[in-house]
Amino acid sequence: LAMQIISSHPASLKTDRRLQMMEVLSKACGPFGMAAGQTFDITVMNDGDISADLLDDIYKLKTGALFTACIELGRLASADDDEFNQQALQQFGDCIGFAFQIQDDILDIITSTESLGKPQGIDVKNNKITYPRLHGMQHAKDKVQQLYQEALEAINYLGDDAQLLRELTGYMLQRQK
Amino acid sequence: LAMQIISSHPASLKTDRRLQMMEVLSKACGPFGMAAGQTFDITVMNDGDISADLLDDIYKLKTGALFTACIELGRLASADDDEFNQQALQQFGDCIGFAFQIQDDILDIITSTESLGKPQGIDVKNNKITYPRLHGMQHAKDKVQQLYQEALEAINYLGDDAQLLRELTGYMLQRQK
Repeated sequence: LAMQIISSHPASLKTDRRLQMMEVLSKACGPFGMAAGQTFDITVMNDGDISADLLDDIYKLKTGALFTACIELGRLASADDDEFNQQALQQFGDCIGFAFQIQDDILDIITSTESLGKPQGIDVKNNKITYPRLHGMQHAKDKVQQLYQEALEAINYLGDDAQLLRELTGYMLQRQK
Repeated sequence: LAMQIISSHPASLKTDRRLQMMEVLSKACGPFGMAAGQTFDITVMNDGDISADLLDDIYKLKTGALFTACIELGRLASADDDEFNQQALQQFGDCIGFAFQIQDDILDIITSTESLGKPQGIDVKNNKITYPRLHGMQHAKDKVQQLYQEALEAINYLGDDAQLLRELTGYMLQRQK
C-alpha cells in the first residue's frame, strides 16, 4: 500500500523524487533489507552459535533498515536536498532502529505478557540468540541508552526543525511494550 | 526485489514510465490485488457458502491481477503507448490468470502428489470451495479452454509481435503441475 500511495498519490511530488522514495523503500523491505534480516532471524539466530558482529548486522537489516528508510522518506517528501541533513537523518534512523530492536528483546525478557501485548519470554522459549542473551542484560540496557544518545547527537545541529524527532526518541526510550 | 529493480536499474527507462510500472505492480500485489485475494482465500473460501461471482472476483484478485500486471509491465518497459494494445494485453492477462488458477484447482484434484510437486487434494482436505467444486469438473475444464481461447483472440491482431505470448499460452494449456 505504501508503494501504491507513493507511486500514484496526487500529492505534488516530483517524479524523480517519487522514484527515489520507491528505491529507498523497496531496498529497505526487500532481500537487501528487512526480508534478509527476517531470513537470518529464522535461520542462524536459532542455531545458538552467532557472533556479535553478525547479530548486529541482523538487527540492522531486520529492524534498522526500515526505520532509516522511514526517516529518509520524510526527507525526500520535502524539498530538502542537503547531503549533511541526509547523513544526519540516516545516522538518527540507524541508531533508533537498532535501539528499538534491542529494547524489544529486553522487554521480551523483563515484561509481563499482559503489558507486552504478546506472549512474554517467547525468545527464550525458542532458544533464540538475542542481544541481551549474547551480551548480558546490563550491557544491552546500556547499549540502548547509548544508541538513543547517539541518535539525538546526530540531529543536534538541525535545531528546532528536529523537535518532533526528539520527542519521538523520548517516547521510544520510555516504552514498556 | 522487483520494485527495487524497477526503481534503480540502470536500464534507460524514462522516469515517468518507471513510476507507472511501480503503480501497476504495487496495485497488483497490494490490498487492492493479490493481498486482498489471499485474504479472501483464507477467510470466505473456507466457510462453504460462496457465490459464483464472488469466487470469480477472488480468483481475479489472488492470481489474475499479478498475471495482468506482468504483461502490462512488459508493455510499459517498451516504447509502446497504444491504448488498444494496452487493452488487448490486459484482456490477455486477465484471461490467462483466471485460467491458470482454475487449472491449479483442477490439478489439485486429478493429479498425483508426485507430479504436482505439492500434496494432492489439499483443497478438498481443507474443505475449500474452488471452481471445480462449485461448478463441477467438466464445467471447470471447459472454462479453462474458453479462457485460453479468449486470451488468444485478444492478441490476435498483434500478429507476429505476440508470438511469444501464444507460445506461453500453449505451454500453460499443456501443464500438468
